[in-house]
Amino acid sequence: MEYKNYIKIVEDWPKEGVQFKDITPLMDNGKAFKSAVDEIVDYARAKDIDIIVGPEARGFIIGCPVSYALEIGFAPVRKEGKLPREVIKVDYGLEYGKNVLTIHKDAIKPGQRVLITDDLLATGGTIEATIKLVEELGGIVAGCAFLIELSYLNGREKLNGYDVLTLMQY
Amino acid sequence: MEYKNYIKIVEDWPKEGVQFKDITPLMDNGKAFKSAVDEIVDYARAKDIDIIVGPEARGFIIGCPVSYALEIGFAPVRKEGKLPREVIKVDYGLEYGKNVLTIHKDAIKPGQRVLITDDLLATGGTIEATIKLVEELGGIVAGCAFLIELSYLNGREKLNGYDVLTLMQY
Repeated sequence: MEYKNYIKIVEDWPKEGVQFKDITPLMDNGKAFKSAVDEIVDYARAKDIDIIVGPEARGFIIGCPVSYALEIGFAPVRKEGKLPREVIKVDYGLEYGKNVLTIHKDAIKPGQRVLITDDLLATGGTIEATIKLVEELGGIVAGCAFLIELSYLNGREKLNGYDVLTLMQY
Repeated sequence: MEYKNYIKIVEDWPKEGVQFKDITPLMDNGKAFKSAVDEIVDYARAKDIDIIVGPEARGFIIGCPVSYALEIGFAPVRKEGKLPREVIKVDYGLEYGKNVLTIHKDAIKPGQRVLITDDLLATGGTIEATIKLVEELGGIVAGCAFLIELSYLNGREKLNGYDVLTLMQY
């Protein structure tokens, strides 16, 4: 399926010079959304994944259906102060300032094979931080799957040594 | 399935006196998560739903798998400044101050039958605001589905006249 037909390019959003890739038209189309998720389900099956991990909020959009389809768990990664029980944290640099991501300490069992999902691979900062959380809990990052890759931002370099699937490249 | 076995009650979070219902153990268990989503899928099928709408971020957790299972669209409701194209807005009161929710203007076609999903029905404020957005776009709210209902907060009163499914009641 030509998924790019369902992505809207929004000029100068969220700031001038950025061509934002809006995935909501793809989500709005049941067949396109199912087809995209199913490609990631097949990938997860091939990688023998035990649990899906996704950063809020758009990591939930892909990750939760994959979890449902494979009947395996989903562990959310959230911003500080959003998860109610004991967490581990990681700081990561954003373009402006810093951000903190957290995961529940009991979300992953040591040795579990983890698939990390998000909508977009840009600079890779969020995913690098998510990998740190998974590995600190003893999880094995067996794959990372995204709908979209912004190749010109070189996010893959940060994910060197990890297996990466992207369905669309810009 | 006794879903309550997979909910952790966290005392005094996010503030003293609150018994927070943590759904992450349910999400962490592939069988429990699939079973819960499937109940909502069956409900959506019976209501002849055309599209799922869910507020960020936890509305995505349930809504996106339901959308995937039925091969129908999912339209996200997000906080102001998060959706990149033309939106309509609604203000709603939170316990402290106000909040704004938005939806893309083209997310729903007039006459579409909509299922609204979220993890929790508490006071009903978020869902009342989401209903306003859906109806302003001409959608028909054919059902509202939640994992958990906090009955003592009387959220159902705000949803008077709408069909509501909840899988657990406290």
